[in-house]
Amino acid sequence: MGKKGPKAPQGNMIIGQSGGPTVVINQSLVGAVLAARNWKGLIRKVYGARHGVAGVLGQDLVDLSEVARNKLELIAHTPSAALGSVRKKPTENECRRMFNIMRGHDVRYFFYIGGNDSAETAHIIYTVAVDEDYDLRVFHIPKTIDNDLRGTDHCPGYGSAARFVAQAFMGDDMDNRSLKGVKINVVMGRHAGFLTAASALGRIDRKSGPHLVYVPEIAFSEGKFVSDVKRVHAEHGRCLVAVSEGITDRYGRLIAEKFISDVDSHGNKQLSGTGSLGDYLAGLVKKGFGRQSIRVRADTFGYLQRSFPGLASQTDITEARKVGEVAVEAATSGHQSGTISMIRGDGKSYRIRYKVRPLSTVARHTTHLPRKYINRDGNNVTRAFIEYAVPLVGKLPQNELLTGRKVNPIKT
Amino acid sequence: MGKKGPKAPQGNMIIGQSGGPTVVINQSLVGAVLAARNWKGLIRKVYGARHGVAGVLGQDLVDLSEVARNKLELIAHTPSAALGSVRKKPTENECRRMFNIMRGHDVRYFFYIGGNDSAETAHIIYTVAVDEDYDLRVFHIPKTIDNDLRGTDHCPGYGSAARFVAQAFMGDDMDNRSLKGVKINVVMGRHAGFLTAASALGRIDRKSGPHLVYVPEIAFSEGKFVSDVKRVHAEHGRCLVAVSEGITDRYGRLIAEKFISDVDSHGNKQLSGTGSLGDYLAGLVKKGFGRQSIRVRADTFGYLQRSFPGLASQTDITEARKVGEVAVEAATSGHQSGTISMIRGDGKSYRIRYKVRPLSTVARHTTHLPRKYINRDGNNVTRAFIEYAVPLVGKLPQNELLTGRKVNPIKT
Repeated sequence: MGKKGPKAPQGNMIIGQSGGPTVVINQSLVGAVLAARNWKGLIRKVYGARHGVAGVLGQDLVDLSEVARNKLELIAHTPSAALGSVRKKPTENECRRMFNIMRGHDVRYFFYIGGNDSAETAHIIYTVAVDEDYDLRVFHIPKTIDNDLRGTDHCPGYGSAARFVAQAFMGDDMDNRSLKGVKINVVMGRHAGFLTAASALGRIDRKSGPHLVYVPEIAFSEGKFVSDVKRVHAEHGRCLVAVSEGITDRYGRLIAEKFISDVDSHGNKQLSGTGSLGDYLAGLVKKGFGRQSIRVRADTFGYLQRSFPGLASQTDITEARKVGEVAVEAATSGHQSGTISMIRGDGKSYRIRYKVRPLSTVARHTTHLPRKYINRDGNNVTRAFIEYAVPLVGKLPQNELLTGRKVNPIKT
Repeated sequence: MGKKGPKAPQGNMIIGQSGGPTVVINQSLVGAVLAARNWKGLIRKVYGARHGVAGVLGQDLVDLSEVARNKLELIAHTPSAALGSVRKKPTENECRRMFNIMRGHDVRYFFYIGGNDSAETAHIIYTVAVDEDYDLRVFHIPKTIDNDLRGTDHCPGYGSAARFVAQAFMGDDMDNRSLKGVKINVVMGRHAGFLTAASALGRIDRKSGPHLVYVPEIAFSEGKFVSDVKRVHAEHGRCLVAVSEGITDRYGRLIAEKFISDVDSHGNKQLSGTGSLGDYLAGLVKKGFGRQSIRVRADTFGYLQRSFPGLASQTDITEARKVGEVAVEAATSGHQSGTISMIRGDGKSYRIRYKVRPLSTVARHTTHLPRKYINRDGNNVTRAFIEYAVPLVGKLPQNELLTGRKVNPIKT
């Protein structure tokens, strides 16, 4: 897998999108569709599958071969999966049904844009195709706002979501300076704290929030959380907190567990689309302050993080486009299957090169925020994280604080 | 009040900010501060009160006379109240204490940037000043994301918050097209539905969400809500809903009432900073669909709506600056007190003129979304609303839908 093999076949191509959308996932789609047009000798028709594998199984395919380039460019800048998305893990039987349909359409190339669950789907499809002796090139094109794929410096989709989170905290820090109190913001991130850590990217001085950052990588203690908040509040007269939706206690149980019922076919629990974790944490803080009446508020950023238009990181736009192109180049140059990973250069200026890796690198696995990006106390990020993330997010708006000579009080 | 009177006095000026911040409230601050520099013969020193009237009472004043213009320009673009905000209604006694302090600093001009509660504060201060024979010019400079002040076409702060909400819904509509199900978004708006109505500004076709819009002006029926959602879901296979945090039942009771405990000194209940209304409505929908398992999610946009940097409407920026300038012009040209209202021209192109009105126009009162902006069924906005709001929000990002020839299915 992932190795170069016999010459690429002639045939048609299917591309699909899967999992939670991002604001640049259509860049990858358009990157792949336009790259395929450069290989008309090999790839004759480009079909888009509506809602991923569900669209293959249901024969809900749309011909993208003739869609005009300027329309594709507008789609590239539109958030969320233009083909529709799905959360579905196909069975072996479903794979065989898909191959029947693909054979009927002479499909020899399959591209699947998504996260680790989508890579797993691609891996299953490739494995069954090999077993069935169906000659299909299968590529996973990475996207995830969680930034938790293995074997890559970072993932397309992360930079833009991180930018949204950073800007949201920049504004909310000003709001919290202005009206004080304790503010808790719950950020997406099921297993990895990368997105929550991005809350710190817009800090402008030592008093800037978020003052506390809790990620799934560090066991969350409710008692320590409340005492952390009280300490910060005593120091600054206010406290802004960033919390991952996926924080767990020291037994690995989700703090949000008590509020959750929905589970998808990959076994993931629904963490987003509810404000209950934030409200629960706000309740803990209110209780912790006891009779001292403190303004405590919680917001849950929710789906805005992955779908807000007009804010994408330019680096992310460029890279998301590129991984789509590179996947097609890999498939047409003889690779059988793979995922596209991004490797950061060691030099001073930010540089990325792209590499084809086996699907098994990414399928099902998740990575975590490295320990060096989390402070010793487990409640904040380090300088090393900021250096890692800044190039991915791009230049942020500039907030300025009002300072001036204090007017001498008069005697009253 | 509001009438021109004797020549403007010589003295110093205090300016403060109050109530919920906006992303352009500092434009009004900077507009007033810079305008005062044009009247050095009358206004000698400009003092900023930290956290509004609390900063006057506590003598927490900062001298803004010497702050450099380029620094002020950066502050103007920074979200939230740079001087700090407060929610406090002063007593007559506190007014007298403030006048003692003001006399000590030779203050003859008082400007207060805020919503209707802040106008009430300004009105109280002016009334007591007249009673006490303290010669003080008192002006309210309007701001509110709720757009619910009387006697004005719209309010500075609304256009930018409306832009955030419109963009958020544009992205979330794409997200909902991609993953289907029912999505409920709770939007700020205690009494007025203007901000929730802005959810409709980014629609691109007849299938675009939000499909349902519920505002506080129309009595909310839980039963009708669930049947509305089921009808839309049956038609589109999905449903995106915008709901004001301030929706009430037919007895005028807040739907959110069961979750609320906090009340501020103006008697307002805390509606924001909690996800419970959204979660409650999502629960109703899940129950309404019964055994039919439907993906239902709720997000509460929260404080991001009023503080998100880098997204402000250009019209809003310009107008927020202008109301600050106009207030100073009014005070120095002999008006005793007042608020600044904005009047829209009748012409085809968007034009605003500014007018000084009595503080009593605005103090404590709120306006509502006119009935003509709400559809007959009470669950959506009309074309007239879109025409009203578009110039305030400015050009939105362009979303494009992927359409193409459907591939003919093969027989399997």
